[in-house]
Amino acid sequence: MPDAASAPAARRAAIGAAEFDRDTAVVRRAPGVYDIDLSAGWTIINAVNGGYLLAVLGRALADALPHPDPFTISAHYLTASRPGPAVVRTDVVRTGRTLSSGQASLFQYDADGQEVERIRVLASYGDLDALPDDVRTTAEPPAIPPMEQCFGPQDGPAPVPGSSAITDRLMLKLDPATLGWALGSPSGKGEMRAWFGLADGRDADPLSLLLAVDALPPTAFEIGLKGWVPTVELTVHVRCRPAPGPLRVSVTTRNLAGGFLEEDAEVWDSADRLVAQSRQLARVRLG
Amino acid sequence: MPDAASAPAARRAAIGAAEFDRDTAVVRRAPGVYDIDLSAGWTIINAVNGGYLLAVLGRALADALPHPDPFTISAHYLTASRPGPAVVRTDVVRTGRTLSSGQASLFQYDADGQEVERIRVLASYGDLDALPDDVRTTAEPPAIPPMEQCFGPQDGPAPVPGSSAITDRLMLKLDPATLGWALGSPSGKGEMRAWFGLADGRDADPLSLLLAVDALPPTAFEIGLKGWVPTVELTVHVRCRPAPGPLRVSVTTRNLAGGFLEEDAEVWDSADRLVAQSRQLARVRLG
Repeated sequence: MPDAASAPAARRAAIGAAEFDRDTAVVRRAPGVYDIDLSAGWTIINAVNGGYLLAVLGRALADALPHPDPFTISAHYLTASRPGPAVVRTDVVRTGRTLSSGQASLFQYDADGQEVERIRVLASYGDLDALPDDVRTTAEPPAIPPMEQCFGPQDGPAPVPGSSAITDRLMLKLDPATLGWALGSPSGKGEMRAWFGLADGRDADPLSLLLAVDALPPTAFEIGLKGWVPTVELTVHVRCRPAPGPLRVSVTTRNLAGGFLEEDAEVWDSADRLVAQSRQLARVRLG
Repeated sequence: MPDAASAPAARRAAIGAAEFDRDTAVVRRAPGVYDIDLSAGWTIINAVNGGYLLAVLGRALADALPHPDPFTISAHYLTASRPGPAVVRTDVVRTGRTLSSGQASLFQYDADGQEVERIRVLASYGDLDALPDDVRTTAEPPAIPPMEQCFGPQDGPAPVPGSSAITDRLMLKLDPATLGWALGSPSGKGEMRAWFGLADGRDADPLSLLLAVDALPPTAFEIGLKGWVPTVELTVHVRCRPAPGPLRVSVTTRNLAGGFLEEDAEVWDSADRLVAQSRQLARVRLG
C-alpha cells in the first residue's frame, strides 16, 4: 500500500472530509451543548487518546467562540474516557478583538445516565491567519532521519500488547534512535521523535495539531518504564497554521521525579515552522 | 543593608508571617468565596504582577481543595488587574485520593460595582510531601555566576521607567550575561537568569514558586524589544517542595513569531532540585 503521505493530493482525504474530522465532529444540540460519540478508533493501549479528546473539545470551542483557532489550550484530565456517547458543554468567558477565551468540559454517562466529567479545558482562541508574519524563531527543527529511514508500527511486530487502534489512523515513522524500547533495548534517554501524519493523507490543521502533540509513544518507554503513563494535564500553544505535508514531532522528558514526569513536544511543519509547542504532566508507575 | 538572603534565620521572615503571605492572604467569606485587597506592592511597570496574582488564586484553591499543593496550574489572563478589592470564586471539580482538581476566577469591580473577571484558572493539587523520593531528573541547573557576581535593581539606576514596586519585595540578582538590556546593549538572545528570593528573607514554598516563575524581567528585553509583554496564559508545574535558601530561575524564549512569544521558566532550589517548570504565552509589540 503506498504511503498515504506521498499519495497524490487527489487521493488524500481533504481537511473536513477525513477520518479525523468525522471522529471529532460535534453536533450542537443547543447553545453551548454539543453531542458526540467518541470513536473507538483513536485508542492507545485501550485508552482513548488524550490528544484526540483535546481535539474534540477544541472543535466545540471553535464553534462556541468568535475566533476560529486555539492559540493556547489547557486540559485537566479528570477521569478516563471510553468510546461511546459524550457531551461537551462550553462557556464563553470573554470575547475580545483579537482573542477570545472559553471553557469546556467533556462528560460521559454512568450506569444511571448521570453525567461524569472526564476533562475540563480553558482556552484562548484567535485567528492564526491574521497574525503578522514576523518570525524570529531561534529554535531549530529536530534532527530526525529522512522518513524512509524511520519506522512505524506497520514495519514490525506490535511491540505494545493490547489494542491500539490509533496506529491505524496515523502515519507514524519513528526515529530509529528513539525505537530501542520496541526492540527491548530502551536508550535510557527521555526522547521520542517521529514523522507524523494522518493515515488517510489529510493535511494537518490547527485542530489536528492538538492530536499530534500527544500521539507518539511515551518517552517513558525509552527511559525503560513500562505501562500506562496517564496524562494529568496538557497545555498546547498553536502558533501557526501548518503547511501541507508531514509534520515532525519531537518529545522530551527531563524531569522524571516523584512519580511524575513532564513531556515537552514540539511540532514542526514542512516549511520548517515551529507550529505547536506543548507540555504535559503525566503520572508514572516507578519500579 | 545586609542581603536578606544571607541574614541569620532568626531575622528572616518566617513562611506564613512575611510580606508575601500578608499580600496573598484571602479571607473566606463563604464556601468558595474569598476576598482580598490586591496589594500595590507587587506591580511591575504599573501592572500587577501575574505570578503574584497566580499565587493569590493558588492560595484560595489550597483552602478549597482537600490537597494542599498545586501540582499543575493553568491561568488565562483576561483583563488587567489593578491594586484594590477583589474576590476569588472557587469550584471543586473533582476530589481523588492523591489528586484533586479545581477551578478559580479572580474578579474585580467596575464603576457600577459589577464583577469583572480578571483571571480564570484550572488546577490539580496533591501533596508534595507524599511523593516518593525517586528522582531521575536529567535536566541540569542553569549556569549562573555566584550571587556576588550578579546584579539587582538596587545595584544601578532604575532601567525601567515607571513604578515597579515589586522590586522592593524581591531579592533579585541577574546574571550579567542577561543584563545587557539594562545597559542599552541587549544580547539578542531570549534568555533571562537570576538568583531569586524574597526581600524579607522568607524561604520559598510551593505557592511562592508561582510568583518566582513570572518575577524576572521579560526575555523580550534581551531580544531588544521594549514595552509591555502581557501574559495571555501561564501554566506552572510544581514538582517538589523547595529547600530553604535562594532559588535560581532561568527563563528562555525560542519562538518569537507572529506577535507572540513563549517564556519557559525553570526554578532550581539550593539542593539542586528542579522544583518548578512553567511556560507562558505572551503578546509582544513588534517593531
